[in-house]
Amino acid sequence: MQNFSFTLKNQCGLARTGLITTAHGDIRTPAFMPVGTAGTVKGMLPESVKATGADILLGNTYHLMLRPTAEVVAKLGGLHKFMNWDGPILTDSGGFQVMSLSKLRKITEQGVTFQSHLDGNSYELTPERAMEIQHLLGSDITMVLDECTPYPATEAQAATSMQLSMRWAERSKAAFKERAGYGLFGIVQGGMHQHLREESAKALQAIGFDGYAVGGLAVGEGQDIMFEVLDYTVPALPENKPRYLMGVGKPSDIVGAVLRGIDMFDCVIPTRSGRFGRAYVAEGELNIKNACHAEDASPIENNCTCRCCAHYSRAYLHHLFKAEEMLGPILLTWHNLQYYQSLMSGIRAAIDAGKLQEFAADFLERQKD
Amino acid sequence: MQNFSFTLKNQCGLARTGLITTAHGDIRTPAFMPVGTAGTVKGMLPESVKATGADILLGNTYHLMLRPTAEVVAKLGGLHKFMNWDGPILTDSGGFQVMSLSKLRKITEQGVTFQSHLDGNSYELTPERAMEIQHLLGSDITMVLDECTPYPATEAQAATSMQLSMRWAERSKAAFKERAGYGLFGIVQGGMHQHLREESAKALQAIGFDGYAVGGLAVGEGQDIMFEVLDYTVPALPENKPRYLMGVGKPSDIVGAVLRGIDMFDCVIPTRSGRFGRAYVAEGELNIKNACHAEDASPIENNCTCRCCAHYSRAYLHHLFKAEEMLGPILLTWHNLQYYQSLMSGIRAAIDAGKLQEFAADFLERQKD
Repeated sequence: MQNFSFTLKNQCGLARTGLITTAHGDIRTPAFMPVGTAGTVKGMLPESVKATGADILLGNTYHLMLRPTAEVVAKLGGLHKFMNWDGPILTDSGGFQVMSLSKLRKITEQGVTFQSHLDGNSYELTPERAMEIQHLLGSDITMVLDECTPYPATEAQAATSMQLSMRWAERSKAAFKERAGYGLFGIVQGGMHQHLREESAKALQAIGFDGYAVGGLAVGEGQDIMFEVLDYTVPALPENKPRYLMGVGKPSDIVGAVLRGIDMFDCVIPTRSGRFGRAYVAEGELNIKNACHAEDASPIENNCTCRCCAHYSRAYLHHLFKAEEMLGPILLTWHNLQYYQSLMSGIRAAIDAGKLQEFAADFLERQKD
Repeated sequence: MQNFSFTLKNQCGLARTGLITTAHGDIRTPAFMPVGTAGTVKGMLPESVKATGADILLGNTYHLMLRPTAEVVAKLGGLHKFMNWDGPILTDSGGFQVMSLSKLRKITEQGVTFQSHLDGNSYELTPERAMEIQHLLGSDITMVLDECTPYPATEAQAATSMQLSMRWAERSKAAFKERAGYGLFGIVQGGMHQHLREESAKALQAIGFDGYAVGGLAVGEGQDIMFEVLDYTVPALPENKPRYLMGVGKPSDIVGAVLRGIDMFDCVIPTRSGRFGRAYVAEGELNIKNACHAEDASPIENNCTCRCCAHYSRAYLHHLFKAEEMLGPILLTWHNLQYYQSLMSGIRAAIDAGKLQEFAADFLERQKD
């Protein structure tokens, strides 16, 4: 088995292309990871997700630990086999969803106890348990347990929260079972405060990780502040490890973050938007439910290679959404995932050609919103 | 363009194999037609339906005339192009759904007026309009407008209703625009009364159709009565035309009806059952939501060739249904459609081998329910 590794390929300003090698294959970066929350990218067959150009999926520890449980997934041969995806999988640590979905949370030095949003049962998540769960799932990339600092937070709150996350990161590293081809990522916290972000980045590097994520963004701070945080956080991270911006984002967020040196992204936007009738196109977003599409024989996008655009008209998709037919969400999700992967592929080609600035300017100019 | 035709291949008792030739290709009989009510087989891509072995789909005139309307479908190139299915399509006349779904129905000699269940708007469906709509949709097999006789009905009610349907059948034939490769089927009515069924079959043959359907069954009368009606109705139909039992049925209904000389079937059971977690297997039905499947690593059926059984465990499907993930209905629908097509393929092979009785006995013995 090859070791987990990251190879830089080309640079263009702060942006870079590269290749992450894992136990289940390679990931071309900058990469977008479709979200398969509960062991499925909603409405999609894994082979269809692969066909859009996705190299890696994200699974949610919080959802899987509650149902069907990590132990059941392990008994059935691990998450790859369970969901029939043979490429790399990254799992988050569950910390973020504990904060956003569960009830009666209590955070201590030890970890977090919470009530499941499904049945009210009580669970404990510690750095050690987060490592155990992700090991049972068989994740190619494991994330440390962290506390996602709320937004807004005072500097003191952000500092206290970040320092707890750094102690949890150390315990995560100690509990992580090393295996060739499997990696562990740390997560930079520190709110919107430069010196806290820098302190966090330094603390994580002292522990040593296979990659570094930027957490605590896309929590309502807006794109300007997010980019500002990236402007001072990314330079505090090592060049030779992948950088992952968690939970981001809209297409323009991704372009802007790649320009600032980010290599990996995940977000529910393309799948969630697809389920609700919103499609991404070069000009921005369209809502297929709008009456203007009712008799439109053209596809969502003329040059798109996805199954949706190859065979179906906007009028048909409009009809499917009006009739609340499952095939509507299926086809629009497919298109949006293709849009995101085509964007990443375009970004990688632009970096390799040394023309990312032009690509980004052209991209942003076409967006109407 | 070839003419619409039916070629008998082999007979085994009253059962037969054959080939229907249409404008959009051939249909091997006995055939099961998956139902694509509103221009989509729920949750399935057309190419996936095709992969299960389906030669022909059914579309519902009632749903399509209300939304997106036959005129819009025609403007967009017809139903085949609209839904990306290049094989044959049969459309019903809308009469059955007017009775079961619409509000404020009024039947006169002229036709039926009703309120849409979608928006309350008033519509009229006459034999002539039913022909026009199906022509606009581009159906390979058009069904005459009939009144589905309610069950139970007195002999007098059944006679009055059947006679109205026969006058509508004559008007349907007169209004049907003949085109090479496109066929028109009549529908035998007459309730559960032998002499009315025979009178209806005779009246239809005097008009002359490309195929003959048996309507007004699977309305609550039970399998015994249904088979009894077939026992005296099928012999009243011509040998050299396809015979279509509308809206049927469970696997055992199909086996029994083929034994009695039926060539074509349609039913929502495989797709609807799949959406609700019920899967067809050799032993009958299983409910994937039952706890006994929660850790079962085996597929729905060991020898099934469908995408669901090739890649996914019962445990994974159980999880998808518990988590209310779209992929659950998608995969079980796929399996059930494969089950039905494999059943039809087994039936055709048994007829060709002169062994349908043995096939049927073996099939029924394995069913536990």
